[in-house]
Amino acid sequence: MKRVKLIVAYDGTHYCGWQLQANGITIQEVLQDQLSRLLGEKITVIGASRTDSGVHAAGNVAVFDTNTRMPGEKIPYALNQKLPEDIRIQHAEEVAADFHPIYEKCIKTYEYKILNRKFPIPMLRYYTHFTHIRLDVEEMKKAASYIIGTHDFKSFCKEGAQVKTTVRTVTDLEIFKEGDLITIRITGTGFLHNMVRIIAGTLLKVGNKTYPAMKVREIIEARDRKCAGSTAPAKGLTLIGIQYVKEMEKEI
Amino acid sequence: MKRVKLIVAYDGTHYCGWQLQANGITIQEVLQDQLSRLLGEKITVIGASRTDSGVHAAGNVAVFDTNTRMPGEKIPYALNQKLPEDIRIQHAEEVAADFHPIYEKCIKTYEYKILNRKFPIPMLRYYTHFTHIRLDVEEMKKAASYIIGTHDFKSFCKEGAQVKTTVRTVTDLEIFKEGDLITIRITGTGFLHNMVRIIAGTLLKVGNKTYPAMKVREIIEARDRKCAGSTAPAKGLTLIGIQYVKEMEKEI
Repeated sequence: MKRVKLIVAYDGTHYCGWQLQANGITIQEVLQDQLSRLLGEKITVIGASRTDSGVHAAGNVAVFDTNTRMPGEKIPYALNQKLPEDIRIQHAEEVAADFHPIYEKCIKTYEYKILNRKFPIPMLRYYTHFTHIRLDVEEMKKAASYIIGTHDFKSFCKEGAQVKTTVRTVTDLEIFKEGDLITIRITGTGFLHNMVRIIAGTLLKVGNKTYPAMKVREIIEARDRKCAGSTAPAKGLTLIGIQYVKEMEKEI
Repeated sequence: MKRVKLIVAYDGTHYCGWQLQANGITIQEVLQDQLSRLLGEKITVIGASRTDSGVHAAGNVAVFDTNTRMPGEKIPYALNQKLPEDIRIQHAEEVAADFHPIYEKCIKTYEYKILNRKFPIPMLRYYTHFTHIRLDVEEMKKAASYIIGTHDFKSFCKEGAQVKTTVRTVTDLEIFKEGDLITIRITGTGFLHNMVRIIAGTLLKVGNKTYPAMKVREIIEARDRKCAGSTAPAKGLTLIGIQYVKEMEKEI
């Protein structure tokens, strides 16, 4: 028995998110089905990030246990042949039997993309949130500076989420504009349910001058979901990648 | 009666190209149907570039004649409401009654995008041609230098195309790499059927070392379609924009 770690990229448009569910096709389900067919044994996959319906990933992480004799690094080639075009394994390697993608210390990076111009661009319709209202990126950057650090992010958590604590650490939040495309790039050691999309929705309100940048400080202090902006649409969000602290230490 | 010029962006994935045809839905058909509904009269649209099935556009140009009292510049807002998400009008203006998008002198810019890495990225699957074979961009640039200029491009024209002359002028051909994405950006006063895709297919063969860069010179001289590389897949191609000489002169 060995444990294999996968890096998985997917276009989330046509999936009901990562996690297995009764009423809709999910990334986890497709991966499990195709891995089971490929390896001839029943495979259960554990994902690092249970991305929501419509959210994309460039590098989500998943592990599974297998008795196969196929070397870990061959798996992407064989599995990609079987997967639909909107899911592609980027990397596979054998890892320690106790490596757990959820409980292992890591930092995650997400990007939220906003297309800000007069008219939408068809090719970006599934991967960006469009708004024609001119956004002030400098004000958004000011607001972002309040979010960086360790805070109680209760105002930025979906109501009813069952978590022990709503304290999280955002290690970096960059906003940059290339042409008409604004990217909010956020890195942290963990995120609450909908946290990145609520941060994006709040920064959108700063950008369009509904909120002054300073208000973000008050929103954090309020510890109340109702004070923050609305949850920005799923399609603008991509999980860029996950770095595990153990692996970073190995590299040093 | 007035003539209106449109700049049209579309994701060509689900269309049988621009031009009206019996067996499949086309951009021209959708535009004509929705313009006719919007303006309450039968509208015929003339496109500058009859892009092939699966080819995309950021800025194709089309004109139509109408009796509407709606000001030209309002049309994008009203029409985009009716169009499917994969077609979006970027601009509209009233032009002279004799402005003809095909016969008017212009320069067109196309981009052919190649994703060159170990595994495909799902989000780019409809907008790039993927190859895992490492391409030598410097060699491709050398080969590109032979293409720039006025030549008989018969080797780069779909066989059987009915044209008076296969002489065309490529005013610029740039190749640049950003991360794993290689863009071939080509500008010229006119292109033969499949010309950009055959140039891309030939440059791919230079990049993967099937052809030396020098061979492109021989291919041009041969005036024989069989000597060039294969026609690269449609999905990698986007018509970026069309600049009309008259309009450029106005700007100066």
